[in-house]
Amino acid sequence: VRPIVALLTDFGLRDHYVAAMKGVILRICPDVSLVDVTHDIPPQDIQAAALELAACHAAFPPGTVFLAVVDPGVGSRRRPIAAAAGDYRFVAPDNGLLGPILEAAFPVSVVELTRAEYAAASVSRTFEGRDRFAPAAAWLASGVALEALGEPVGTWTRLERRQPVVHGRRAEGEVVRVDRFGNLVTNIAEADVRRAASGVAAIPSVSVADGPPLPFVSTYSDVPGGQACGLVGSTGHVEVSVNGGSAAERFGVTRGARVTVQFSS
Amino acid sequence: VRPIVALLTDFGLRDHYVAAMKGVILRICPDVSLVDVTHDIPPQDIQAAALELAACHAAFPPGTVFLAVVDPGVGSRRRPIAAAAGDYRFVAPDNGLLGPILEAAFPVSVVELTRAEYAAASVSRTFEGRDRFAPAAAWLASGVALEALGEPVGTWTRLERRQPVVHGRRAEGEVVRVDRFGNLVTNIAEADVRRAASGVAAIPSVSVADGPPLPFVSTYSDVPGGQACGLVGSTGHVEVSVNGGSAAERFGVTRGARVTVQFSS
Amino acid sequence: VRPIVALLTDFGLRDHYVAAMKGVILRICPDVSLVDVTHDIPPQDIQAAALELAACHAAFPPGTVFLAVVDPGVGSRRRPIAAAAGDYRFVAPDNGLLGPILEAAFPVSVVELTRAEYAAASVSRTFEGRDRFAPAAAWLASGVALEALGEPVGTWTRLERRQPVVHGRRAEGEVVRVDRFGNLVTNIAEADVRRAASGVAAIPSVSVADGPPLPFVSTYSDVPGGQACGLVGSTGHVEVSVNGGSAAERFGVTRGARVTVQFSS
Repeated sequence: VRPIVALLTDFGLRDHYVAAMKGVILRICPDVSLVDVTHDIPPQDIQAAALELAACHAAFPPGTVFLAVVDPGVGSRRRPIAAAAGDYRFVAPDNGLLGPILEAAFPVSVVELTRAEYAAASVSRTFEGRDRFAPAAAWLASGVALEALGEPVGTWTRLERRQPVVHGRRAEGEVVRVDRFGNLVTNIAEADVRRAASGVAAIPSVSVADGPPLPFVSTYSDVPGGQACGLVGSTGHVEVSVNGGSAAERFGVTRGARVTVQFSS
Repeated sequence: VRPIVALLTDFGLRDHYVAAMKGVILRICPDVSLVDVTHDIPPQDIQAAALELAACHAAFPPGTVFLAVVDPGVGSRRRPIAAAAGDYRFVAPDNGLLGPILEAAFPVSVVELTRAEYAAASVSRTFEGRDRFAPAAAWLASGVALEALGEPVGTWTRLERRQPVVHGRRAEGEVVRVDRFGNLVTNIAEADVRRAASGVAAIPSVSVADGPPLPFVSTYSDVPGGQACGLVGSTGHVEVSVNGGSAAERFGVTRGARVTVQFSS
Repeated sequence: VRPIVALLTDFGLRDHYVAAMKGVILRICPDVSLVDVTHDIPPQDIQAAALELAACHAAFPPGTVFLAVVDPGVGSRRRPIAAAAGDYRFVAPDNGLLGPILEAAFPVSVVELTRAEYAAASVSRTFEGRDRFAPAAAWLASGVALEALGEPVGTWTRLERRQPVVHGRRAEGEVVRVDRFGNLVTNIAEADVRRAASGVAAIPSVSVADGPPLPFVSTYSDVPGGQACGLVGSTGHVEVSVNGGSAAERFGVTRGARVTVQFSS
């Protein structure tokens, strides 16, 4: 089976930066299958990168190596790391990008990329993606053991994230991601909704900021076209959507907006 | 030879959605070669999706599986289908997206994706692309027969499209696609132009809405830089272009604008 | 080892054009590994295309075939060419796109794509990328010799480029590329800076247009967040950057803006 390296960056696809990383990977691991997760993370937005990676990595085959470079501290002292978590391996700067995945997995191994033989002969201080992270990912994909890449480290940078709060029959959280369709994806997990339901038959509704209650449904087309609703989306989190439209436009909100799921009898 | 799955969606590449589908496909069919047709179809624009797919699928090797997901009715009762048409296979919602291809090919086999064993164990009602369509495409690419995926269906959703009209020495149609360069691609096929010519030597001209006649040429640079012209483009349809510029900007029109090819002696 | 074809165009990814080229390549060379360099070159911007290609091609494995199509003269008399330069092969219109690479390599072989058997049976005069360039690249990747594709040509179109000037302890050049992060990449190479330094210990500074001197550092985070600096970027050229921000926005400049590196004792 061909090894897979999946890439996530904030480099965009307009410049040659992603291509340079792919060239480097193909030199080291010619048989690799390269997959783009996304390169359109807003520049230096570690939160967004961490969420996208966490949302899709488990869809990939076991053994996939994820190369994730959103790196405001490139060239500085933040550590370059590689990690094994669950069935997957990851290469990234230690700036929180891998936080959600490393917190959720057990056991986890993390090393700092200290071995020069697994990086380019000369490492640009402004493009470690090409010279340090891409080679490390390619060597992992080629069969080099994680431990060979550097010294084990015991801690890593966590990602600061606000958690949703469940009190009584309400779950209150916030928008953490706005997707291309204008869906407002929140940090409220399906389990939070169940806790708020407290095992009592009741009808939930969802609201954005102090807006009116919206029906809580199963899929967009459960409400008429143009109408807003709440539902549990494909990553298992509550989202607010407009059937055939954009909830982001409808409500004029973005990341950070408060969303509440409320049960009433 | 490695099987090919070519993907077309309106998901964009900013979110993780396309990557999730690719991960799923690679799990089922590790040797697959994945090719993006485009993911920048305007949200829920079935017409645009159908046109892009029809325009390029025949360039691919026989046996290619096309996974096309533009799906305003996700989670609703519209049928998920797979089809064999000519040398190719297709997986898509039955909403007209495959209409032009299924109308043009013969014979055609279509099945509804009813077999649960070829979908994810649990199917999200907001992301059937990941949980139902991607697995079906991957199983087809892996060698599973179309008939194994579900029950045959005898009809499918056609795509409503206005046809060009030829009367006398005129062919009248409309803009159906505006490309990145601002070329106005119409629904007037080369055959329509030939019918309007009626076998008589004559000089054609093309006009947009009620604009002045433009020279009908063979390629952009047959007119001076900055000048507008008509020609038969790479998909065999009349288009209006500006050499080194954008016809969409020049004429201030978009999809639906009337275009006429006129022969005069 | 699987052959690699790397693609660079100004086609964008919204239309089906890039996919059509990939389909054609896969028909001819089923085992190919396809890599996108970028398809977001501004329409018909040969300078930008030439720079991106020159900046990343050497990261790829030897033997890689680059298919580069930015072609304002499509269908006209400009020659379609293929070239071998260093460890790489290239297929492109002869319009300057390959200029910087062909000037820098030695020896170089260039042929005009004259052999009809290595093009599509019928060549669209508006899409030679699909019908002429893509097949040629695929045949090269399949093992066909460069010489088989057509007649050798002795000269090719060079790219007009202004060179930086070093006088005294100053190197003066211009912005040639603005990347996604707003970094202003110049045509001043590291060697130009060393010449200006003239072997004397001195502190360089960099300035944009007639702006104030900015510190010359090693990486973005050597200056505080939000502060501008100059440095030698990942392609070995001087760039002006803002740590955590966009230098293009800060200075309100774009391609062509004057940048000066100055040594003072």
